[in-house]
Amino acid sequence: MSIQVSLTDVEAAAKRLKPVARVTPLLTNSRLDESLGLHVLLKAETLQHQGCFKFRGAWNCLDTASSSQLANGVVAWSSGNHAQGVALAAKLKGCSATIVMPSDAPRRKRDSTIALGASIHPYDRATEDREEIGRQLATGRGALLVPSYDHPAVIAGQGTVGLEMAAQCAAMDVTPDAAVICCGGGGLAAGSAIALRSRYPQCSIFTAEPEGLDDTARSLASGRREENSAHAASICDALLTPKPGEQTLPLLRSVGAQGLVASDDDVRATMRIAMLELGLVLEPGGAIALAAVRRYRERFQGQTILVTLSGANVDPDLLRIVLDGE
Amino acid sequence: MSIQVSLTDVEAAAKRLKPVARVTPLLTNSRLDESLGLHVLLKAETLQHQGCFKFRGAWNCLDTASSSQLANGVVAWSSGNHAQGVALAAKLKGCSATIVMPSDAPRRKRDSTIALGASIHPYDRATEDREEIGRQLATGRGALLVPSYDHPAVIAGQGTVGLEMAAQCAAMDVTPDAAVICCGGGGLAAGSAIALRSRYPQCSIFTAEPEGLDDTARSLASGRREENSAHAASICDALLTPKPGEQTLPLLRSVGAQGLVASDDDVRATMRIAMLELGLVLEPGGAIALAAVRRYRERFQGQTILVTLSGANVDPDLLRIVLDGE
Repeated sequence: MSIQVSLTDVEAAAKRLKPVARVTPLLTNSRLDESLGLHVLLKAETLQHQGCFKFRGAWNCLDTASSSQLANGVVAWSSGNHAQGVALAAKLKGCSATIVMPSDAPRRKRDSTIALGASIHPYDRATEDREEIGRQLATGRGALLVPSYDHPAVIAGQGTVGLEMAAQCAAMDVTPDAAVICCGGGGLAAGSAIALRSRYPQCSIFTAEPEGLDDTARSLASGRREENSAHAASICDALLTPKPGEQTLPLLRSVGAQGLVASDDDVRATMRIAMLELGLVLEPGGAIALAAVRRYRERFQGQTILVTLSGANVDPDLLRIVLDGE
Repeated sequence: MSIQVSLTDVEAAAKRLKPVARVTPLLTNSRLDESLGLHVLLKAETLQHQGCFKFRGAWNCLDTASSSQLANGVVAWSSGNHAQGVALAAKLKGCSATIVMPSDAPRRKRDSTIALGASIHPYDRATEDREEIGRQLATGRGALLVPSYDHPAVIAGQGTVGLEMAAQCAAMDVTPDAAVICCGGGGLAAGSAIALRSRYPQCSIFTAEPEGLDDTARSLASGRREENSAHAASICDALLTPKPGEQTLPLLRSVGAQGLVASDDDVRATMRIAMLELGLVLEPGGAIALAAVRRYRERFQGQTILVTLSGANVDPDLLRIVLDGE
């Protein structure tokens, strides 16, 4: 399969996003660096609109569509973050949005999506197929489908995270040895990798996934799209994708990406450290890359590592549990 | 009393701080803006070294001292944030630091200070005078005293927060109508006000203090240094100063500053919103300015308001309490 997204696409997405998205900061923390024995650069997409990077891809997808394509609204499936990104982009475009969302999605993600004016179409994750529901809804209405990762405009939009990281590294006069990127379907990882590698060709790319839901890690190793077990579970509600994208996997392979994993315990410990040492709230999926860096710290000793913090949308109950665990 | 700190002093401090401090981001949040009916620009000093702005003033004070002045180490009194700022600055300068700290200071602040290599000299807030203890220690050892606010170099250092905010407003092409600044002894507020007003002379300056510990608000109104009751209490452990500084109050008066207050309930609600809506952990004193903006939102309708988020160092027990309160 040919590669669908190039640096030019990501740069075009950056131009579209400039008036509406935030440039999120690339943070450093010397206490964290000392405790890990490496230099971490934290891309705080937790400070993006709706507390997650997802607005970037959603906006780029809607902004490249024609007004007639948007006339009947947009449809997306999402556990909550892509939902909010699509809902906000649709609100700014003045079109309607319907989100196919699992009935067990975090309450805050559902509430925030509704607050943005979107309609929720709930489904049962165990028995129903969200893609089938979404496609039927979109076809029935003549609405535009906005995939959560497997779409060139979405990948290019998320890739602006990598483009910003590259520019911020250059401004800070540091050369990243590696980037560790939160990975569900791989849109953020693939798009960011393309942008980063064009400026820093020696920068190694790592995806970070929940242990037991390491479809991308296994797919990168085997060269085929490997699936997760339907029974695999994780607290990382944002990363419960069944398999890598048709488009994201070849992009990740083209940069020689390797897959890392972290356990739920790693994630909770990382969320706790983020709150108490970094002053940042992370949702589980948003903490997975830093959790992986902490887990594999020996491998990265002395290196400069870019780490995405991809989301902050977490229910207070889970934050309480994280604070309890010492 | 003549004014001790000018824009030139703050600019000189900024030069000294450039190689060692972080430029913290000025964040926006459209959800917050919509809920308040105004445009808030959040200066996230929670992302500064040691999770607080205090390193700026401490570094500027140590960096303007001669090596012979530092030869016998430094002494400071602090409930924890200035302690960490001084401890880090002393560590970077290679000199010893002793901190006079209340025995009921938050555990994390004490632990972080010790982790930076400083010695703690505990005292009883109810029966002992920290300034007297600090001065005796410094005199006995020939050590340099680093006041937490009432010192030109400290005020100029904290003022770099205002200088950065002004530059960031200019880069964002927004003109602030007002700045609401967290206020204990007034170092951050006075220094930042001087820097801000030199670029934005129409920008109103407000201090934010805990209800019942509004010495600065009352002093600004009366023109005299008013004291707090010894029995006044607040969860804002960083803001329990008895009265405004001799140097900070005239500076604040020179810019026509007015005092706002917020209650402990306001502060807890604001900390909760910061965690769940902004993705940021705030300590109580670090939340006071945003708490005041929320309390006085009617006064600020439609305006563009700079708000300092001055610190993030909080024990997990308090975060749990904040998350419980709905």
